[in-house]
Amino acid sequence: MRRLALVAALLLPGAAAASPDGVAAAKSWREAHGAAILRDYAELLSLPNVASDLQDVRRNAAVLRDALAAQGVHTELLELDGVPPVVFGRLDVPGATRTLALYVHYDGQPADPTKWASAPWTPTLLTRAREAGGVVRPLPRDGEAIDPEWRIYARSAGDDKAPLGALFPALAALRAAGIRATSNLVFFFEGEEEAGSPHLGAYLEKYRDHFASVDAWLFLDGPVHPSGRPLLAFGVRGVTGLEVTVYGATRSLHSGHYGNWAPVPGRLLAQLLASFYDDAGRVAVAGFYDSVAPLGEAERAALAKLPASDEALRRELGLAESEGGAPLAERLLLPSLTIQGLASANVGALAQNVIPATATANLGIRLVKGNDPAAMQELVEAHVRRQGFFVVRDEPDLATRLAHPKIARIVRESGYPAARTAMDLPVMRQIVAATTRAVGGEPVLLPGMGGSLPIYLFTDLLGQPCIIVPVANHDDNQHAPDENLRVANLWYAIDLYGALLTMP
Amino acid sequence: MRRLALVAALLLPGAAAASPDGVAAAKSWREAHGAAILRDYAELLSLPNVASDLQDVRRNAAVLRDALAAQGVHTELLELDGVPPVVFGRLDVPGATRTLALYVHYDGQPADPTKWASAPWTPTLLTRAREAGGVVRPLPRDGEAIDPEWRIYARSAGDDKAPLGALFPALAALRAAGIRATSNLVFFFEGEEEAGSPHLGAYLEKYRDHFASVDAWLFLDGPVHPSGRPLLAFGVRGVTGLEVTVYGATRSLHSGHYGNWAPVPGRLLAQLLASFYDDAGRVAVAGFYDSVAPLGEAERAALAKLPASDEALRRELGLAESEGGAPLAERLLLPSLTIQGLASANVGALAQNVIPATATANLGIRLVKGNDPAAMQELVEAHVRRQGFFVVRDEPDLATRLAHPKIARIVRESGYPAARTAMDLPVMRQIVAATTRAVGGEPVLLPGMGGSLPIYLFTDLLGQPCIIVPVANHDDNQHAPDENLRVANLWYAIDLYGALLTMP
Repeated sequence: MRRLALVAALLLPGAAAASPDGVAAAKSWREAHGAAILRDYAELLSLPNVASDLQDVRRNAAVLRDALAAQGVHTELLELDGVPPVVFGRLDVPGATRTLALYVHYDGQPADPTKWASAPWTPTLLTRAREAGGVVRPLPRDGEAIDPEWRIYARSAGDDKAPLGALFPALAALRAAGIRATSNLVFFFEGEEEAGSPHLGAYLEKYRDHFASVDAWLFLDGPVHPSGRPLLAFGVRGVTGLEVTVYGATRSLHSGHYGNWAPVPGRLLAQLLASFYDDAGRVAVAGFYDSVAPLGEAERAALAKLPASDEALRRELGLAESEGGAPLAERLLLPSLTIQGLASANVGALAQNVIPATATANLGIRLVKGNDPAAMQELVEAHVRRQGFFVVRDEPDLATRLAHPKIARIVRESGYPAARTAMDLPVMRQIVAATTRAVGGEPVLLPGMGGSLPIYLFTDLLGQPCIIVPVANHDDNQHAPDENLRVANLWYAIDLYGALLTMP
Repeated sequence: MRRLALVAALLLPGAAAASPDGVAAAKSWREAHGAAILRDYAELLSLPNVASDLQDVRRNAAVLRDALAAQGVHTELLELDGVPPVVFGRLDVPGATRTLALYVHYDGQPADPTKWASAPWTPTLLTRAREAGGVVRPLPRDGEAIDPEWRIYARSAGDDKAPLGALFPALAALRAAGIRATSNLVFFFEGEEEAGSPHLGAYLEKYRDHFASVDAWLFLDGPVHPSGRPLLAFGVRGVTGLEVTVYGATRSLHSGHYGNWAPVPGRLLAQLLASFYDDAGRVAVAGFYDSVAPLGEAERAALAKLPASDEALRRELGLAESEGGAPLAERLLLPSLTIQGLASANVGALAQNVIPATATANLGIRLVKGNDPAAMQELVEAHVRRQGFFVVRDEPDLATRLAHPKIARIVRESGYPAARTAMDLPVMRQIVAATTRAVGGEPVLLPGMGGSLPIYLFTDLLGQPCIIVPVANHDDNQHAPDENLRVANLWYAIDLYGALLTMP
């Protein structure tokens, strides 16, 4: 494994400079070294990073620790037994009175390679988005012109290695220009966010003194506004889920010899899932919307100022209609219940004339402020029971099967609640101003994002304000096959970090 | 590939014998040569035989042709361009005035190896059924005692290589005992039954003169009665199907960033599928039961005499209830609409936080006398349209997606109608009598089986009577993972064929 070599090699000793223009320094650095920045980024993407494979995530952590250390950052791998480490770094700036903490997660979603056009951990550069006719091309050589519409395809290209691909060049740019950061910096790279951050709370507890001085957490994660405009967000949805399996006979049966007599799990599951919704897609589970915290004045005002992007997004996604009859930003402030996966025997070429033995649905639940994860799971389970299902936790045995015509095995997934932070704190205003400077215009300010981050731990456990600073293109296919990052968004991230690290 | 050697090597020149007891000859032959019979059968099962792989099915056909030829049967591969051949054989018996045709299909269902406990085309002998605690053991050596409860696991073990595994030993037994068949014999081994027999009609047309003298077709296929009792059946259900795909956005989306706004294909599919049924599983598609031909007196009488096996079957399969509130044999005389497969993104370990782009259901339709396949497909399609779906044949383009909130792509599968034959023809009575003699008691007589065979081509095109003569165990997992044959059923088949080939 080569190291992320270029950035480190080009670092100059840090020194206060005449010009404090971090944005200009970032821009000219990435214009001069774009090809090397892309190659380093691709190398980082080539490291498999599913949280459940500890060896893989450790390899990522080691590379990131070394990359930080090479820039004079004090680094440390924070450890808990047998789980992915946190890559921690601290850079104290003489005279700085503010501490910014930068959160990134270096693990990625699992990937089913059969559904990808190129291998998930073989970063592949295309001349534009694949669905826009992009074709594969080699990574650029030094000095070669770089089209900002190029896209790099790989798992985690957007979620969440993009900030890492931009952060090291941004630091290098400042040091090369002799510009000192205006804040003390804390780096916190998590390794199991996509697994639901099961140990983040324990890490924050154990290493609480590492974060005592933090004035604001910047969550470097997620895609920008669907309009393509820069975005700052002050809240996130929480997340949890359930997997529901319903049962037919103890084995799959010939659909001719038993069809019309043996119960069909696909029918039982379809009837159950259909009962979750009304025709417009509104969740019909009793109580599902009851615990939602009402929106305040500030949130309403921010919502009213949002650009109207639904129509364009709808057309781009080929949707004649959206669900719920309200704009996306508003719909994201409600909890959701999504059928994320369905499986029963096979379809297509492998389809068989069987009555399958089981049918399974994976259900994702997104939470908003006010929703308790376990309470929301319980509402769904209670609904399943009301549909006449006997709910079990494990595979039902024969006696259970013979006693109950409708059995649902429900496996509850872990998760965490939503979070929201105040939009008018001084440090938040400073961040908004720096972002405005970086992009030459006001960013979209969002009270709540649709995605989920474990921000409640920082706001509740540490009592520190948090803001989400996304950089990826909105169509980056994150969590899905063919995840990608648009090069222009990597450039945006470098410029933005140049501004944030040098904000007054 | 070794040849099916033993059977051929042990053949004696055919000659009329003093004793015409075909059953006794079959029994003593398989008692003396059981181990070799099992090994030959396993070798036949080791040949992959999915109809779409022409090279594989040709290898099966060549082995079967050679095995027939080695017994003095006039053999021929009937051919149509680019499709699996029919293995044809003819054995004329001096003085015989009756011609029996024996139909078997040598192709098998596709198999998803990941769902099998042992590889589908690696025949594996277990000491009993796997779910009854059977463990793997080697194939027996000559002279080793054979437990009739052993089971051989392999694709096509029951459906439909079991008759082939028994037919050659039965012929060998008669020749070894010097017993001549009492009928001229026609052998017809089809190679694409599991693909819906798309060329069977063309074969019968092209080679019509090969079958002119046939007095009765014996369809050697399917499992015996669920009670375990021998079975003769006079009808089969027809079969067809549809695959329905419904659409969300043009690509899968992050369930956080878009959940509650982007339509979820799993919901649309669940609501559509739920609308197909009432709560008891009765098909709610308008007209679905309208074209069913009413049962006659003979069928009702036969149904009334059937052993009550539902309760035992239900317990065996772990079902608290069956669908429709009537015995299995009666339910099989109605058409069925079965959700044979469901797929949308992933569940389990590969599940992701996505709104999938599509959701697909594979629907099997079983037909009874009176149902036209295309008309039944049309009823289902009309129902889909009535649920507000715009029906397309190919992937919808962007304009179609933007014009229609609910789109269903329906791919119609091929198929064929049901068939029923008269139970009181003289040749049918002779067959019933021979079967009774072979098993020492009256077999179950079934007006209509649940499975599907292309019998309508024989009854309608050739105008010749047909009877289904199944031999496999009812729990053979045919069409499903872990297909298997119980050795006792192979023994039954050999004895039965000994009786049928020598019936007065």
